[in-house]
Amino acid sequence: MITSDTDAAVVSPSLPGLRENFAPTRAQSEQLAAPLCTEDQVVQTMPDVSPTKWHLAHTTWFFETFVLRPFLKDYEPFRQGFNALFNSYYHTAGTPFPRHRRGVLSRPTVDTINRYRSHVDEAIQRLFDMGDRSEEWTPLVEIGLHHERQHQELILTDIKHVLATHPMMPAYRKSDSTEDPPPLDHSPSPMQWLDIAGSTYEIGHDSLGFAFDNERPRHQVQLRDFQIASRPVSCGEYAEFIDHGGYRDPQWWLSDGWQWIEETAPTAPLYWRRQNDQWVTKTLDAVRPVDPAEPICHVNYFEADAYARWAGARLPTETEWEVASRIDEVKGNFLESRRFHPRPCTAGDPSRRDSHRYFGDVWEWTSSAYAPYPGFRRFAGSMSEYNGKFMCNQFVLRGGCCVTPRALLRRSYRNFFAPRSRWQFTGFRLAR
Amino acid sequence: MITSDTDAAVVSPSLPGLRENFAPTRAQSEQLAAPLCTEDQVVQTMPDVSPTKWHLAHTTWFFETFVLRPFLKDYEPFRQGFNALFNSYYHTAGTPFPRHRRGVLSRPTVDTINRYRSHVDEAIQRLFDMGDRSEEWTPLVEIGLHHERQHQELILTDIKHVLATHPMMPAYRKSDSTEDPPPLDHSPSPMQWLDIAGSTYEIGHDSLGFAFDNERPRHQVQLRDFQIASRPVSCGEYAEFIDHGGYRDPQWWLSDGWQWIEETAPTAPLYWRRQNDQWVTKTLDAVRPVDPAEPICHVNYFEADAYARWAGARLPTETEWEVASRIDEVKGNFLESRRFHPRPCTAGDPSRRDSHRYFGDVWEWTSSAYAPYPGFRRFAGSMSEYNGKFMCNQFVLRGGCCVTPRALLRRSYRNFFAPRSRWQFTGFRLAR
Amino acid sequence: MITSDTDAAVVSPSLPGLRENFAPTRAQSEQLAAPLCTEDQVVQTMPDVSPTKWHLAHTTWFFETFVLRPFLKDYEPFRQGFNALFNSYYHTAGTPFPRHRRGVLSRPTVDTINRYRSHVDEAIQRLFDMGDRSEEWTPLVEIGLHHERQHQELILTDIKHVLATHPMMPAYRKSDSTEDPPPLDHSPSPMQWLDIAGSTYEIGHDSLGFAFDNERPRHQVQLRDFQIASRPVSCGEYAEFIDHGGYRDPQWWLSDGWQWIEETAPTAPLYWRRQNDQWVTKTLDAVRPVDPAEPICHVNYFEADAYARWAGARLPTETEWEVASRIDEVKGNFLESRRFHPRPCTAGDPSRRDSHRYFGDVWEWTSSAYAPYPGFRRFAGSMSEYNGKFMCNQFVLRGGCCVTPRALLRRSYRNFFAPRSRWQFTGFRLAR
Amino acid sequence: MITSDTDAAVVSPSLPGLRENFAPTRAQSEQLAAPLCTEDQVVQTMPDVSPTKWHLAHTTWFFETFVLRPFLKDYEPFRQGFNALFNSYYHTAGTPFPRHRRGVLSRPTVDTINRYRSHVDEAIQRLFDMGDRSEEWTPLVEIGLHHERQHQELILTDIKHVLATHPMMPAYRKSDSTEDPPPLDHSPSPMQWLDIAGSTYEIGHDSLGFAFDNERPRHQVQLRDFQIASRPVSCGEYAEFIDHGGYRDPQWWLSDGWQWIEETAPTAPLYWRRQNDQWVTKTLDAVRPVDPAEPICHVNYFEADAYARWAGARLPTETEWEVASRIDEVKGNFLESRRFHPRPCTAGDPSRRDSHRYFGDVWEWTSSAYAPYPGFRRFAGSMSEYNGKFMCNQFVLRGGCCVTPRALLRRSYRNFFAPRSRWQFTGFRLAR
Repeated sequence: MITSDTDAAVVSPSLPGLRENFAPTRAQSEQLAAPLCTEDQVVQTMPDVSPTKWHLAHTTWFFETFVLRPFLKDYEPFRQGFNALFNSYYHTAGTPFPRHRRGVLSRPTVDTINRYRSHVDEAIQRLFDMGDRSEEWTPLVEIGLHHERQHQELILTDIKHVLATHPMMPAYRKSDSTEDPPPLDHSPSPMQWLDIAGSTYEIGHDSLGFAFDNERPRHQVQLRDFQIASRPVSCGEYAEFIDHGGYRDPQWWLSDGWQWIEETAPTAPLYWRRQNDQWVTKTLDAVRPVDPAEPICHVNYFEADAYARWAGARLPTETEWEVASRIDEVKGNFLESRRFHPRPCTAGDPSRRDSHRYFGDVWEWTSSAYAPYPGFRRFAGSMSEYNGKFMCNQFVLRGGCCVTPRALLRRSYRNFFAPRSRWQFTGFRLAR
Repeated sequence: MITSDTDAAVVSPSLPGLRENFAPTRAQSEQLAAPLCTEDQVVQTMPDVSPTKWHLAHTTWFFETFVLRPFLKDYEPFRQGFNALFNSYYHTAGTPFPRHRRGVLSRPTVDTINRYRSHVDEAIQRLFDMGDRSEEWTPLVEIGLHHERQHQELILTDIKHVLATHPMMPAYRKSDSTEDPPPLDHSPSPMQWLDIAGSTYEIGHDSLGFAFDNERPRHQVQLRDFQIASRPVSCGEYAEFIDHGGYRDPQWWLSDGWQWIEETAPTAPLYWRRQNDQWVTKTLDAVRPVDPAEPICHVNYFEADAYARWAGARLPTETEWEVASRIDEVKGNFLESRRFHPRPCTAGDPSRRDSHRYFGDVWEWTSSAYAPYPGFRRFAGSMSEYNGKFMCNQFVLRGGCCVTPRALLRRSYRNFFAPRSRWQFTGFRLAR
Repeated sequence: MITSDTDAAVVSPSLPGLRENFAPTRAQSEQLAAPLCTEDQVVQTMPDVSPTKWHLAHTTWFFETFVLRPFLKDYEPFRQGFNALFNSYYHTAGTPFPRHRRGVLSRPTVDTINRYRSHVDEAIQRLFDMGDRSEEWTPLVEIGLHHERQHQELILTDIKHVLATHPMMPAYRKSDSTEDPPPLDHSPSPMQWLDIAGSTYEIGHDSLGFAFDNERPRHQVQLRDFQIASRPVSCGEYAEFIDHGGYRDPQWWLSDGWQWIEETAPTAPLYWRRQNDQWVTKTLDAVRPVDPAEPICHVNYFEADAYARWAGARLPTETEWEVASRIDEVKGNFLESRRFHPRPCTAGDPSRRDSHRYFGDVWEWTSSAYAPYPGFRRFAGSMSEYNGKFMCNQFVLRGGCCVTPRALLRRSYRNFFAPRSRWQFTGFRLAR
Repeated sequence: MITSDTDAAVVSPSLPGLRENFAPTRAQSEQLAAPLCTEDQVVQTMPDVSPTKWHLAHTTWFFETFVLRPFLKDYEPFRQGFNALFNSYYHTAGTPFPRHRRGVLSRPTVDTINRYRSHVDEAIQRLFDMGDRSEEWTPLVEIGLHHERQHQELILTDIKHVLATHPMMPAYRKSDSTEDPPPLDHSPSPMQWLDIAGSTYEIGHDSLGFAFDNERPRHQVQLRDFQIASRPVSCGEYAEFIDHGGYRDPQWWLSDGWQWIEETAPTAPLYWRRQNDQWVTKTLDAVRPVDPAEPICHVNYFEADAYARWAGARLPTETEWEVASRIDEVKGNFLESRRFHPRPCTAGDPSRRDSHRYFGDVWEWTSSAYAPYPGFRRFAGSMSEYNGKFMCNQFVLRGGCCVTPRALLRRSYRNFFAPRSRWQFTGFRLAR
């Protein structure tokens, strides 16, 4: 049942291909910010969250710093001081501005940042026109576009936190008021265990098309027989764990997870709360009852791991996940659907090539610590800081989510977050 | 040489007087915010600082909550949820929003807050028109106007912190570029010691005109002979303290002050930094060299107290200050001068009725802990939370500063801050 | 009814007097440590608490550093490294060891510290024998003895915290098992309001005998008519405040006090807990029911102030307290009674000269911030750090308590603690 | 060159074998505490460190709770309250006492704990005598003995921290004063790269003899060709990294590691400091110059990883380490040598079966996050909390160190610590 990986390269490193993708990719960031008022784009509700305008400026700084300054002759930086403000974590490019203070930067304004974006975009077009030494900078532009897409996901993830933690809970956009609330007796399709035979498999990115350094090299792994769930765990299933006192019983939790419980006293996933005897949650559009058939979302690694133990199962490793995912094509509910929320796992057409829900909807926690693949080599130069230096105390997530741009994702794509993080669109599926 | 207190009541509690003052006072808040971009009005750079838009909304909430809701028949609150957002510390009016989180409130927008202001201002005009039971609500309107003026000062004080701690140091307003920088050899008028004879004096507010509860009752105090300086300590004098290692020698500091030094490692007043072998500071208009003749500003109680000990003197008590201040009329460099910065203490016309600089320029730290006067009674009702509950771990400051509205101040006005605070326009004068 | 202050000097600064007092005073510290096992003398349960062995060493270091090193020819310090360990806060004598780390000093051992004590005591006797320049060092020996007594109180106060916060709650000493528990219907003598006429009074220490610098100079104060309670507030009265929801209602609390409540969630005085529907408390001897007739103890300034407001009264100022206290002689339940706990305020012989309970039993919070008296001058030299540098964010307590050595106290004695502190034996009485 | 794993089981689970090992193993704990004074056994210098007396009591509590209470008929617990004090992290056995507060427990005394040990040891002997249901409890006694050995290592590791962070730096035991200081030009044997051929290997514990659950099951792994160093990195080599500014250059550090640097400002391994232009370190016996030929010790994961990157290499995975270690027998400088410090890596007899220093001296950091082996099953019952719940945010260390009891270690033994920890005897070797 496991098919070979036919995931094609989405963006070609060819100059015409880049050129074609550049403007629409950049425009998409601005479109995501468009429904927001200026004030929304300024605030930072916790250290992990960045203001919208910071995302818009930082992605622009990336092109300016790594492409334009070194490669576009006579390039005039838009404003000298921006390097000190919009460097996220590249020590090779100067001293990064403290992350948790991004929300105290009133300036530059949203308008100025939009002019900054135009300034840089026009300069990139000039670079495209000139074309000199393009073999040196096209890889950087390509990374820059993937980087932009990563921040598009973050714009939505972060603004959800900004809006959802506000006492008045404003919506990101005008929602369709005719939409019905989800039925409370909604049932997901039954969860089934699929068998995967133990063997030697290959995982990681093959050589075609773009991939981040952390997806390489493709390498062999030894797997034992295992079973994996036919879909992610649903909200209704997770609510049973809560009802059975899951958050109050240390036996289900990792030691660090129990410490998290003792320090923060959570009783449900992020954005859930109890109202009139039912769970309600927040989406980017509204506050509404939890749909039991939806994949659970906004849980951290500890919650995923604890649920799995309570259910007599475990989380899959990232190797198991990647191998098992081959049953689906890389299709699903991504940012382009503009739902910005996971779809319910209702019984659908089993012949669909995304019917096991590996891709889109929710990022899936795996039990694998984020670590280098055997033979891993960091990108060269400043890009060496892109991925490798975070390989510590993080866990791998796979599959993308409902706010991930489709063009960002590959089967081999490795996302990673600290085990306490739950403001991302994160769920999980079981293995055993 | 000590004259009797002839400080007249500034705002009469009469309905016509209030009516006359209401619109201009409210308008002044908006004028102070006018030079700022929207983004500037949102951020909070530290827990003590509130966003501009919060000040604009909170002062409006004050009138809505304490005047309109109880007294204007059929008043429609602008938006129900605002009570949870803009209550600063009135437990009698609900649960205050956490102070240090004011900067994560993206909504309501600046525009909405301006509409909120209009909505409330119009309702107040209706109340003025109806005039029923005015004896009950005119005192609250009067407090509300003084409250508005207090926040006008805070709007400028807080935005100075927002702008001055920004790496690009934007200016609050376009400064007059033809202004010359201060001469570096600027000398203040010589400091002289004035003798005050010990005796029984009266301090506190007499019964005419408005005063806050904490200025009452007027009462007798016993004073011994003392001497007090003819003007505040200047920047040049304070710089000598720095040069003599003042910040590195525990002998000058209170125990809590030395702990503050060990924790935060200050080397100069707030907003000062060393550049090319000279001190530069930040004003609301510019970054420019320190003028040695200006009163020292943005020092906390510990710094004032340490300087005084180093200089072989001490700070005056608030009683001494109030008695000695009678040499000046309540005149000086207040908000209305629109300098927003202390004037140099250069030798001027000694016949001027503010030539000892007791009023305006900088708030002056006294050595008096903020405590109730003998026979103190809190305002009634919700207003009982206005002043009395802060009488702990704060020190009294007197005299107003360059961003204090003139109409707020009286000779008996008692300002108070924690001894670590230095983002206010705070200086001091010596006594012995 | 207010008598003049006839409080005689307890310790004369004469050499024979000092000599007579020296050995018994030093011995008393060791006797207080005697019931403790070695382990008890090592631990530090919170930053405010010091280990018993630290107290024993620090008081010895005081004599070594300020008396023996400068004045005893050929004095050999016991161990060079001790200066770095046992300096509490004298910057003039080197860099103090961090206070909150005293409990990680396993060495020197209790035995070594006892040898240190003998070494220093013998050297002091040699100094007494020689007698040279005694006018220079007898004042320091005198301060050293008062300092020793202050630490005797702290030894008991701190070890109570060590023992009472231990889950097994060991007793400080074997208690008399035949002692009956207090009757639960125990009533204190009725509280009466005594009138004090407004006038000019003198407070502070007169010139006879020893006093700390902070008790001087004696000076005139203006008092208005006031009333003061005939005894401290009792446990039974305080329990009513708790029963009426006192800890849950912000209207009774100072702003800083309510913040303390929100941060630490107290529900009763320190050492109280609810057991089988009654309050039990811990003494140095036992865990036993609260005696309703005892003065309330182990409350902080916020609790005292909140109770007073709830009761429609206020705390007295230290001036009022000192003036009113003249009704009693400086007699009462001090350390020498070896009760180490407040006595119940039961009706006793009204002719007793301590029948208003101003002295002994519990320190009484006053509403006065700890500040210099007019004309205050610090002790000279190193002793200048003794008191003056703490005059910030502390409140004055008066009267001594059940673990205060009698010889330490005077009517004019000013104790001071931060308003959050409640591990001391602290209660209060009402005024209005 | 890689031999098969012939590591024999050290402790047999047979009753006679356990019986023979029980008393000497227990006695060894007491012998390690014997040189310490009572005070040394009480203090806790940081949350990771436990007091000696706590280790002595906790290991005893382990036998009482998991063996005697369930299996010895009529067993009388020594003291009821001890369960609340000496439970480390077993939620199935009650609520653990907060780890960071172990140092405030003055009681039980060292003497009482020794009586507790005797009480439990005698009861275990009675259990041995009766022998009923021994198949149920012998596995628990066996784990208890390994547990005791783990704490023997911790007794020495923790007391080193207690003594070494004391300003007077007392020694653990009287050192042999005739011992010469190490020569400063001491050179380790040259480091060589050994080649290991890529292949499928087996790692983990085979079925013979005791192993912890985390060492099982033995399983196949795929390895690529790699090279591994012939010995650990030496102090002299590490000092070069320091000299080249290693601690000041973010390019060598993981992102979390650089954050550690910014927060704690380390400049060298723990216990090193600069004195007269040379590095000195602390051993359990003395303060003395660093021996350049010794393996580097007391570095954390971040330091090991940064050094490796600077050196153009990397850390081995735990799989690589285990496979490569087969060149040595499980022999070396363990606790039994009573050196309690790593030996220099000087050229020795290459035919020695521990000449590559895989075992003893220093624990070696691997690049492997601590995770379950494929097919991992936790121990049953309370023992399920022993290892599995810590599999998060920790890295695996291998090989034991100079304070590890020999009987604790196996080739497959997996130690684990958080990447910031450096108070353990931790070093590393390079791979590439």
